[in-house]
Amino acid sequence: MKTTLVKSLYRETKDYVGKEIVVAGWVRTIRDSKSFGFIELNDGSFFKNLQIVFEEANIQNFKEIAKLPVGSAIIVHGDLIETPNAKQPFELKASKIEIEGASIPEYPLQKKKHSFEFLRTIAHLRPRTNTFSAVFRVRSLVAYAIHKFFQERGFVYVHTPIITGSDAEGAGQMFRVTTLDMNNLPKNEEGKVDFTKDFFDRETNLTVSGQLEGETYSMAFRNIYTFGPTFRAENSNTARHAAEFWMVEPEIAFADLKDDMELAEDMLKYIINYCLENAPEEMEFFNKFIDNTLLERLNNIVNSEFAHVTYTEAIDILLKSDQKFEYPVKWGNDLQTEHERYLTEQVFKKPVFVTDYPKEIKAFYMRMNDDNKTVAAMDLLVPGLVR
Amino acid sequence: MKTTLVKSLYRETKDYVGKEIVVAGWVRTIRDSKSFGFIELNDGSFFKNLQIVFEEANIQNFKEIAKLPVGSAIIVHGDLIETPNAKQPFELKASKIEIEGASIPEYPLQKKKHSFEFLRTIAHLRPRTNTFSAVFRVRSLVAYAIHKFFQERGFVYVHTPIITGSDAEGAGQMFRVTTLDMNNLPKNEEGKVDFTKDFFDRETNLTVSGQLEGETYSMAFRNIYTFGPTFRAENSNTARHAAEFWMVEPEIAFADLKDDMELAEDMLKYIINYCLENAPEEMEFFNKFIDNTLLERLNNIVNSEFAHVTYTEAIDILLKSDQKFEYPVKWGNDLQTEHERYLTEQVFKKPVFVTDYPKEIKAFYMRMNDDNKTVAAMDLLVPGLVR
Repeated sequence: MKTTLVKSLYRETKDYVGKEIVVAGWVRTIRDSKSFGFIELNDGSFFKNLQIVFEEANIQNFKEIAKLPVGSAIIVHGDLIETPNAKQPFELKASKIEIEGASIPEYPLQKKKHSFEFLRTIAHLRPRTNTFSAVFRVRSLVAYAIHKFFQERGFVYVHTPIITGSDAEGAGQMFRVTTLDMNNLPKNEEGKVDFTKDFFDRETNLTVSGQLEGETYSMAFRNIYTFGPTFRAENSNTARHAAEFWMVEPEIAFADLKDDMELAEDMLKYIINYCLENAPEEMEFFNKFIDNTLLERLNNIVNSEFAHVTYTEAIDILLKSDQKFEYPVKWGNDLQTEHERYLTEQVFKKPVFVTDYPKEIKAFYMRMNDDNKTVAAMDLLVPGLVR
Repeated sequence: MKTTLVKSLYRETKDYVGKEIVVAGWVRTIRDSKSFGFIELNDGSFFKNLQIVFEEANIQNFKEIAKLPVGSAIIVHGDLIETPNAKQPFELKASKIEIEGASIPEYPLQKKKHSFEFLRTIAHLRPRTNTFSAVFRVRSLVAYAIHKFFQERGFVYVHTPIITGSDAEGAGQMFRVTTLDMNNLPKNEEGKVDFTKDFFDRETNLTVSGQLEGETYSMAFRNIYTFGPTFRAENSNTARHAAEFWMVEPEIAFADLKDDMELAEDMLKYIINYCLENAPEEMEFFNKFIDNTLLERLNNIVNSEFAHVTYTEAIDILLKSDQKFEYPVKWGNDLQTEHERYLTEQVFKKPVFVTDYPKEIKAFYMRMNDDNKTVAAMDLLVPGLVR
């Protein structure tokens, strides 16, 4: 039996209006009066629900359906009717409703606002809420846009090792990976753990960066990118730290800092545009319920030509400003969040690349500039999104 | 300075013939006579090399260039000339050659056949060889084709946890993940390791499958897929085992085994077609140097309508055959590789889905069929590629 996706009903409405269709999905809300009722059905293909009208007159199991708990899985046959005067553009007038799997009255996601903290305790159910369905669909689109952007430009996608003996640039605390029996560890002559008995005959950990491997592939394919999970064992519970996260690391050969910045600007605009075009309902939802400056900020990024400033120029701007900073502004010190916010939000009012940092505050592998004091590095500061 | 990719020269030749261009890449081979020489340049954008002709008459640093070791990085200015009577379709007549980074005479990848075992010892260089550049470019294209296939069909890409406390279906040996100091382990009252002191306050390991998490997302989005690294700590050094590998796990709601098989068949054909179309040079290379049945086998997959047989029918076919099998054929026993090869290579001569296995030999979560003996599971057997 062929079912129609709710997404198709919204995107290609005229192909379905007046036709008999079958949809399958989960009950988000249900309400009934004596002889008829309404179901808000979500089938996962689309952010919005499909309204279903069911009437005692033509639904055999009307009473059973009217009592269905939220979360129940149903298959609905019916005609799609336009409703020009209603909130929703159309509704499905049901002729038959099959129960695929009933839910229970105690189903935790009832029609009310749930806190993120509560939803965290039911992680297996939260993708069924508006907020998390929007979050995870947009995450999926962002991931795909990243691949699409690089593949369309001929970049080779490299899977760098997750289990590794390398600590890359020493970027962070690492998770150890082992198959040794922790309650019965082999010891060497010095009484220390004998890692030559471990799975890979040595100490191994989860990767903190695929960059060093990526660089070796860049010397073969010219343009490559990595996109995979990365791990940091910092025991720090802030919005800036995650123990496990997915990271993109492009590497381009025969390129300079200017090429690097062009690539970063193009990529960011491409990804944002892709989400705005492919998840307009989700982005509207975020803008309405999570952060009402979101669309304005994203449009500002997409429509701006990004600014460029050297670290030395940035320090000058900060020194000349009237703003009071908590951390001292001094050539050689790393920029603090307050400095970065000031530059991008107050001075440039758009994304700004800061380049040519003092060599002391950047990683060892950065290219030294001719001044012997700064290196060819860049950070991108974005209004409202400072690292 | 804008450089042209060698891929563009091969794919859009007429746009470049007779024009002055700049290319950048690495020397694969170099040979010279008294007053002129040839360089095979690979720039990583394309499997094939670009032939460069350089002459003493117009190359200022002719002697230096003629002595360049293999692997050197150079930037070449010149005119692209068609060479209708030569092996290669065109060559670049150099007017200027800049050395970006010279290699050394001892560079390990000289123009000769290297064993895979040797290349394994120089993993950072092997993507620069024909075989591994083909392997890794095709891997990148396969990965992208997987995303493209699912995203075009509205599937949501889910990043399931890599570090987890779950062992999924108990599919394999696991790698432990810990931040405890192995030389100074905290102990509990029973003298065992106290994992409540570990990073996540419990025992954790690397995922063996994202399936259980994927299923919860499928109940929200209907159609989802995972594609990420997976880990098995089996200490088994065969071509069928890898400690770390990337796995795809689609989950589809409101679907039956038939939908599942359609999806698998469509996906496989899509991926293979994508590689044949986007890496024809690499696929030809594999067919010529690695396995000269490859293209024939892939074309057979792409052009076949896959066969379908139940496990019970498969057992009947095996029992009736004249073939001598090492392992006994008996209803209830799992199919061995020899049985699978016989079915797909001798009987069907194309890919075949085997369905409805006895419940005892499949995982606990498979749907029980009405016969109460078999479950709605399927395996796809492919000629020459049996699991």
